[in-house]
Amino acid sequence: MKDDEIYVYGKHAVSEALEHAPEDTIKKVFLAGTVNDGALFTLLKKRNIAPAALSANAERAAGRDASHQGVIALVDASKLMLPFETFLGALDLSKKPALALLGEIQDPHNVGAIIRSAAAFGLSGVLIPKDRQAPVTGAVVKSSAGMTFRVPLISIGNVNQTIRTLKNKGFWVYGLSGEGASTLGKETFTEPSVFVVGNEGQGLREKTEELCDVMLKIPMHPRTESLNAAVSAAIVMQDWSRQHPEALL
Amino acid sequence: MKDDEIYVYGKHAVSEALEHAPEDTIKKVFLAGTVNDGALFTLLKKRNIAPAALSANAERAAGRDASHQGVIALVDASKLMLPFETFLGALDLSKKPALALLGEIQDPHNVGAIIRSAAAFGLSGVLIPKDRQAPVTGAVVKSSAGMTFRVPLISIGNVNQTIRTLKNKGFWVYGLSGEGASTLGKETFTEPSVFVVGNEGQGLREKTEELCDVMLKIPMHPRTESLNAAVSAAIVMQDWSRQHPEALL
Repeated sequence: MKDDEIYVYGKHAVSEALEHAPEDTIKKVFLAGTVNDGALFTLLKKRNIAPAALSANAERAAGRDASHQGVIALVDASKLMLPFETFLGALDLSKKPALALLGEIQDPHNVGAIIRSAAAFGLSGVLIPKDRQAPVTGAVVKSSAGMTFRVPLISIGNVNQTIRTLKNKGFWVYGLSGEGASTLGKETFTEPSVFVVGNEGQGLREKTEELCDVMLKIPMHPRTESLNAAVSAAIVMQDWSRQHPEALL
Repeated sequence: MKDDEIYVYGKHAVSEALEHAPEDTIKKVFLAGTVNDGALFTLLKKRNIAPAALSANAERAAGRDASHQGVIALVDASKLMLPFETFLGALDLSKKPALALLGEIQDPHNVGAIIRSAAAFGLSGVLIPKDRQAPVTGAVVKSSAGMTFRVPLISIGNVNQTIRTLKNKGFWVYGLSGEGASTLGKETFTEPSVFVVGNEGQGLREKTEELCDVMLKIPMHPRTESLNAAVSAAIVMQDWSRQHPEALL
């Protein structure tokens, strides 16, 4: 199995892939003999994919804890990821778009949940570093409820270099932090915005914080130390969408 | 292992238990010989607990995927849960408190995340049905970042009966639903509030929806069908906290 090959599992996630993934992304679909899902067969036909019988190998590759419901697809994840330059070149900045940037998120559940919320709140894409960051896997696809195929995912190199490039393009860079100086609810997000979500344990790196224009804080009760990374990302993105209702159309 | 005995694992979660769990909740603490954490030893001393050596049995009981860091505690979960009547009797309704009610949430990650967000946004408690609902386990404690020991958890029987009782007490009942009639951002939450979070797949039961005073919708992009249950709960609770800053003091 190559680095970029991932096993997407479960009826919903595989249907999402068949419906929305770019062409040539889906290498193979494995079905258990018991699967009898008309909508799924229609999607397979549309893609001209002849399913293979579900093998023990495919099950193993999907992962021991994968609740696959007899449906597994082998997907070329490299084809899901857009190059940063291509994406940025095509982006219409006059629409004041927003992006999420994952800063070394470790938990696949969080990566998937952030992608799902980014899709829900009208963001234009999710920037995912190649290194020190949980990659897009079958578990991520599952946690995203298949939204990995509906919101652009952009592969980036160095986080700080990416932030510098975005700033040069006119983006405002918001870092999420419990110790932020600016309180959520006061920001109006009038410029193109990028939300940088830090690692679950350590938060953002010092150098990254220095590059942020605004460190955003979500007010919370003193009995708590922090919020879940995917939860804080969702709250900030939802706040952005309140001020950009046109992004939800 | 009794039904109510759960294995809490990881330094942070066990420290939270030692610091904040009610008396007699912690039955035993297992430590690997390699653990050398001064703060943890101080907490053990304060509780008068002599740790036992970490056994293969305790590791197995904590679960194969539990990242325990050599620290596991056996906790009596029944002592963590308050009876509904006791809790409600002691609640000061003049402060217009808010509660979260879990309506058949299945994923322990979501249960833990909702408890963590409820703690962060100043809710007075989380109501957890005894049946058809993921119970509080070590995985829930972990996902809650130990907040299971800081926010009151209340054991309830029938969801609909509980809602009726709360309504009689003057609570307004908000159901979370993608098809809600009322849009988040317009509610002012002037009365005691309870937020009912439905099952990940099916949402709220019809009977439960009928009992809700308001079905609340979080606006989202048409490309998405729904939000993660823990994410929608967090967004609604955060919105409540914006209008009740006194609850974060």
